Amino acid sequence: MDFDLPETTQHLSRRLVEFMNEEVYPNEALYAEQVRQGPSPWVVPQVMETLKARARAAGLWNLFLPNKEWGSGLSNLEYAPLCEIMGQSPIAPEVFNCSAPDTGNMEILARYGSKDQQQQWLVPLLAGQIRSCFSMTEPDVASSDATNIRTSIRRLDGGDGYEVNGRKWWSSGAGDPRCQIAIVMGKTNPEAPIHDQQSMVLVPLDTPGVHIERMVSVFGYDAAPHGHGEIHYDHVRVPAENLLWAEGKGFAIAQGRLGPGRIHHCMRLIGVAERALEMMMERASSRVTFGKPLVQQGVIRNWIAQSRIEINQARLLTLQAADMMDKLGNKAARKEIAMIKVVAPSMALRVLDRAIQVFGAKGVSHDTVLAQFWAHTRALRLADGPDEVHLEAIAKLELRRK
Amino acid sequence: MDFDLPETTQHLSRRLVEFMNEEVYPNEALYAEQVRQGPSPWVVPQVMETLKARARAAGLWNLFLPNKEWGSGLSNLEYAPLCEIMGQSPIAPEVFNCSAPDTGNMEILARYGSKDQQQQWLVPLLAGQIRSCFSMTEPDVASSDATNIRTSIRRLDGGDGYEVNGRKWWSSGAGDPRCQIAIVMGKTNPEAPIHDQQSMVLVPLDTPGVHIERMVSVFGYDAAPHGHGEIHYDHVRVPAENLLWAEGKGFAIAQGRLGPGRIHHCMRLIGVAERALEMMMERASSRVTFGKPLVQQGVIRNWIAQSRIEINQARLLTLQAADMMDKLGNKAARKEIAMIKVVAPSMALRVLDRAIQVFGAKGVSHDTVLAQFWAHTRALRLADGPDEVHLEAIAKLELRRK
Amino acid sequence: MDFDLPETTQHLSRRLVEFMNEEVYPNEALYAEQVRQGPSPWVVPQVMETLKARARAAGLWNLFLPNKEWGSGLSNLEYAPLCEIMGQSPIAPEVFNCSAPDTGNMEILARYGSKDQQQQWLVPLLAGQIRSCFSMTEPDVASSDATNIRTSIRRLDGGDGYEVNGRKWWSSGAGDPRCQIAIVMGKTNPEAPIHDQQSMVLVPLDTPGVHIERMVSVFGYDAAPHGHGEIHYDHVRVPAENLLWAEGKGFAIAQGRLGPGRIHHCMRLIGVAERALEMMMERASSRVTFGKPLVQQGVIRNWIAQSRIEINQARLLTLQAADMMDKLGNKAARKEIAMIKVVAPSMALRVLDRAIQVFGAKGVSHDTVLAQFWAHTRALRLADGPDEVHLEAIAKLELRRK
Amino acid sequence: MDFDLPETTQHLSRRLVEFMNEEVYPNEALYAEQVRQGPSPWVVPQVMETLKARARAAGLWNLFLPNKEWGSGLSNLEYAPLCEIMGQSPIAPEVFNCSAPDTGNMEILARYGSKDQQQQWLVPLLAGQIRSCFSMTEPDVASSDATNIRTSIRRLDGGDGYEVNGRKWWSSGAGDPRCQIAIVMGKTNPEAPIHDQQSMVLVPLDTPGVHIERMVSVFGYDAAPHGHGEIHYDHVRVPAENLLWAEGKGFAIAQGRLGPGRIHHCMRLIGVAERALEMMMERASSRVTFGKPLVQQGVIRNWIAQSRIEINQARLLTLQAADMMDKLGNKAARKEIAMIKVVAPSMALRVLDRAIQVFGAKGVSHDTVLAQFWAHTRALRLADGPDEVHLEAIAKLELRRK
Repeated sequence: MDFDLPETTQHLSRRLVEFMNEEVYPNEALYAEQVRQGPSPWVVPQVMETLKARARAAGLWNLFLPNKEWGSGLSNLEYAPLCEIMGQSPIAPEVFNCSAPDTGNMEILARYGSKDQQQQWLVPLLAGQIRSCFSMTEPDVASSDATNIRTSIRRLDGGDGYEVNGRKWWSSGAGDPRCQIAIVMGKTNPEAPIHDQQSMVLVPLDTPGVHIERMVSVFGYDAAPHGHGEIHYDHVRVPAENLLWAEGKGFAIAQGRLGPGRIHHCMRLIGVAERALEMMMERASSRVTFGKPLVQQGVIRNWIAQSRIEINQARLLTLQAADMMDKLGNKAARKEIAMIKVVAPSMALRVLDRAIQVFGAKGVSHDTVLAQFWAHTRALRLADGPDEVHLEAIAKLELRRK
Repeated sequence: MDFDLPETTQHLSRRLVEFMNEEVYPNEALYAEQVRQGPSPWVVPQVMETLKARARAAGLWNLFLPNKEWGSGLSNLEYAPLCEIMGQSPIAPEVFNCSAPDTGNMEILARYGSKDQQQQWLVPLLAGQIRSCFSMTEPDVASSDATNIRTSIRRLDGGDGYEVNGRKWWSSGAGDPRCQIAIVMGKTNPEAPIHDQQSMVLVPLDTPGVHIERMVSVFGYDAAPHGHGEIHYDHVRVPAENLLWAEGKGFAIAQGRLGPGRIHHCMRLIGVAERALEMMMERASSRVTFGKPLVQQGVIRNWIAQSRIEINQARLLTLQAADMMDKLGNKAARKEIAMIKVVAPSMALRVLDRAIQVFGAKGVSHDTVLAQFWAHTRALRLADGPDEVHLEAIAKLELRRK
Repeated sequence: MDFDLPETTQHLSRRLVEFMNEEVYPNEALYAEQVRQGPSPWVVPQVMETLKARARAAGLWNLFLPNKEWGSGLSNLEYAPLCEIMGQSPIAPEVFNCSAPDTGNMEILARYGSKDQQQQWLVPLLAGQIRSCFSMTEPDVASSDATNIRTSIRRLDGGDGYEVNGRKWWSSGAGDPRCQIAIVMGKTNPEAPIHDQQSMVLVPLDTPGVHIERMVSVFGYDAAPHGHGEIHYDHVRVPAENLLWAEGKGFAIAQGRLGPGRIHHCMRLIGVAERALEMMMERASSRVTFGKPLVQQGVIRNWIAQSRIEINQARLLTLQAADMMDKLGNKAARKEIAMIKVVAPSMALRVLDRAIQVFGAKGVSHDTVLAQFWAHTRALRLADGPDEVHLEAIAKLELRRK
Repeated sequence: MDFDLPETTQHLSRRLVEFMNEEVYPNEALYAEQVRQGPSPWVVPQVMETLKARARAAGLWNLFLPNKEWGSGLSNLEYAPLCEIMGQSPIAPEVFNCSAPDTGNMEILARYGSKDQQQQWLVPLLAGQIRSCFSMTEPDVASSDATNIRTSIRRLDGGDGYEVNGRKWWSSGAGDPRCQIAIVMGKTNPEAPIHDQQSMVLVPLDTPGVHIERMVSVFGYDAAPHGHGEIHYDHVRVPAENLLWAEGKGFAIAQGRLGPGRIHHCMRLIGVAERALEMMMERASSRVTFGKPLVQQGVIRNWIAQSRIEINQARLLTLQAADMMDKLGNKAARKEIAMIKVVAPSMALRVLDRAIQVFGAKGVSHDTVLAQFWAHTRALRLADGPDEVHLEAIAKLELRRK
């Protein structure tokens, strides 16, 4: 047992922090400005492509991918502290080509994709040339119970393709003009055993029948230029080779995707909370009310201390889950993953809420990252399963252990 | 001591509920649609004027105003349950001409306005023909401590007018095309005793030098078509008769305004929470996960019970504060007002948060009123003074009582 | 609707406060001393009988009993503020002959007792000459679900008596040397419909077969000289006329008893919290750390304000429940009773916990009433049904209302 | 970074668990019985000496002492998981000669004691033959600010000894008949710089003038046979060689003692919480209400999951603090120590509270360890500094870091 960061990570971590300080934070405002000033919100700000090029040149690129052939080969534990640093800016994950949902999609393609699928989609995704979305959640059913998913992926007579029919939402990134491909989950065989009914197929977004009907907002944020799309897949036909892995493997792929996906969210949320704490301390140090700086108010000092405590605890739990995933695999670590999925968003929300309160009315506006971070983080108490589903999973595993 | 609603209120309450059911709730979606579809967000949806006309015809108009000459003459205690009902829909307060900040502004004009000021501004406001904003908070100082306010209202040489210089934000309603008048707080005499330095003047928004520089969002909401304006008052000149009451009375007017303003917010928030609880119960009854309706989950039943408990407690505290304001005046009731100002927003946030969790991803989107209510309510933990300032006031009064 | 105290209550309230200040608080330490110094803990301190005589002489006696023939005839709403005052001292309820479980037992006897039963037991109880206990909870089953209760009350052949067999605990007061009578709940007919199986009988504690096996402590408190008895009823025979009301009425009597019993607990707990808040403020004002009195610490001021808010909310909810019980009856008010039963203990525990923290190590010792109050209050989150059972009841009623 | 337990610890941990299962848990009831049945509570139960002998024979003895000359030589990180296991039973720490306050006192003697002091006191303490107490806290001042301490340790004219005058309480263990020695903190030089005024001396309890005036209870618990003594040191004279280290070193010694002392408390509290969670799960699995086992209630499953999450987070934070103490020293780790001192007691209290609620009325009685654990744990939110003092220290260090 040892709590020091691994050597590799320490080195990358220093370089990443440097890049954040020199390139990312100073360009947050410009990015927001370019989104606002663009011909439409759904145009990618030019500064993003510039930053991506610099990050790639600096070798700070695709760090998320444990696969050594395609990516950095970093373990979850090694990547965790880096992912946390990226989480400190809303624009950073994309700068380093480490943003959801592409990370999860790239991992699926690296693990389960055919050579052809990898050439066609993984290569440009890894190069940051295109983006992708993931169509799982449906508006009409409680998708937290994935067996509820109703979209059908019917094999065409003759077997040379599939037809997809269904309605999906929270297909994040679908509004991005660079988004070219969706991974869609649906039922290929409603008669099969419950966990073998679902499959995943690759659906290029320019396929006839793909209707992106609207972007869904999160607490007023349209998430432009990425957006959370509601997509109607209406008699959408794709060739048979667009199937991922095999029929009936939808659940298995989802499981494989969700473990790392969840832990990445948690790592980034710890970064979010660190940023909020830092901002809270700065604001409290500079703002004066009733004759003294806010930072001399006992209640605010208490918030600072509590935030530090909560962040450190959540980080350790996340790192331990990463360590277990690395050593024993995602399945053995599923209780630990569920725990951090419950802990990290709520922790970050508490810290953000305190920071907002210290910033006063400015905190709820778009003049800081706090309100935007809050909205995004609140959604993460639901995305990839609501807290209550994870708590139930933890209880079940805990009771079984006895 | 008696907990039954007063007779007058019971009657009005029944009629109000009827109107809400028949006219308001069914038009919420249309209103939102018209805002989205309009030539710009800053155009008032036509349906609003239609509803206002109906409400006025039904005698459900200006119920907020205790002043018998100009308004309903209802006491705070009598108005409270009505205000709560209006709070249940984001569009209802305006329908009944009972929405902030106009209510507070109308009350100021009814109480402190000259005959001329009343003819020019109060009459059209009471008729729902124009709207108004209130320019108090400043971006550069912690305005929770009102002595920090820096805008200057300088009397012109010759004494026939004032010049206003300063920057204000959170001037809510300033984006509304119908908004014609601002009440601006600033210093007329920086040398006077601390509570006599500030005054209030009426500034028509078309006065030269009034620059509405932008609308500030709350979380991602732009609050269109009303908006929260940031206004630069740049060498703005108004005639001497635009002064409210007298020089040095800014604090006194603010105090008089804030008591009722705060309690109205609290009443509406109880309505917000009731709506959220009702929605939560409906959703939980109809949504099925893991083989049973959500409403059979113990945790969700617990949320329902806790919400009922918290709402009822907050309502009683608010009604008691209203009773005390009516009987002993706003000053004697200031501890009670501070208490509800702390209690109501946090209570409503908890109930909304549970409702959002029950709605899943839909709860954070704009498909329900929940996310919008949440954002607005979160801002109310800061508007009219952050929780911490009120808690400090309560502690001080409590310790003095001994 | 009106929040002023009723005239009668205001008058009694003033006299009660006076008596508390002059007679009760000054004797708390003496009482504790006499318990500690007595030949055994199970001897009633002499000072208690003296105080009871004075209270009776002052007409501050049996105020709890709404029945006009036997008691004060005060309504629940009128009694509530008085009961709260008594709650402020652990010894006060007994001083005024208003302490549990005798109050509930006297109410049963006044309502359901035969003339003979009233002469034999109610008269001396009302005179404060004897005490009583209530044997309902059983160690072997979850008694929160009263249908679980297993003690049998078998009618003897020939019908001239009953035989009681079973084990009860939390028979509070059974250790008191003055305790002469138990009301025992058990099954007379296991074949009857579920709510008609139970009955209640009067069992004099000197009946052969009544074995008080031990006193159960609450945290480390033995509650001497009253105690919480574990009683083995081993082939205990009582005459037929000891049955209360009629066979199969056990549930109905329990329901009738529990409503007022619960609200009395809540009223007293509000008094407990008021005492704790007052002590907290006094201590914080006098204790200096790191160069300033504790009361200047923002966190402690926050606790004071939060405590005031929570107490006031709980009081209003309790008074409203009392008002509804008076106007509509205990059954119609069962949601309101359940709500205060959940709210009051948790509220008081929070206030006590803060007070303890302000007192430091002294707060956990027996040098103040805080630790004792805490232990007793914690038990009240379980007595008369655990919070979770009440929350479930509230949820059920709330969902039904729709 | 690595989250596996060190090899040594894994081995010792297995043996310790075995010993707990075979010797400790099965004797908890007997121990309690012997305390109750003894001629006085202040007699050490015979079973304790038996268990100590067995533990010593098994080599599970003095594991706490990092000093290799006198003890196990285990690092804080290595000892932590063992200390946690001991914490699971109230009687275990003493069985393994690892109980407070002796552990801290032995560490002081090992580190700062002279050869003579070590021979006379450390050797028999390490052998488990005698016990000791630590007299720091005073009833008359807020001792959380150690500069408040007033007891005087005056050097006698001629310099051949010291006279101690003062009143101390919370001298834990002073009621134990085996307790022979106190370490007393007091002022040798009130004129010195603030942190050089205090010294520590060894005071044998049979020295004339040492009056153990009473035992202070914790929530009704007298902590027999150990007790928390209030001691009057009344003109107590000790020879000069009883001084620890040097005059003016009281603060320095206290600092050195409190780091490990605090972390030991935290480790044990994690054990306490594990025991409570295990008991909660067992009870919930076996107890039936309203037709199903408690463990099928969603709310209780939620408690189980939350408890697991909170325990794991607190454990990791504690282990990290231990790692930092080992690597960088107690001073560098003071923020981490402060954090766990705030986290561990509150976490354990929450888990215990849930367990108590699941046990119902039995949970507040002495029929389980829960109530006793609760009372002891609540006191630990005050012992070694109240939470608020540690939170303030964390805030200060956190703000300085920037």
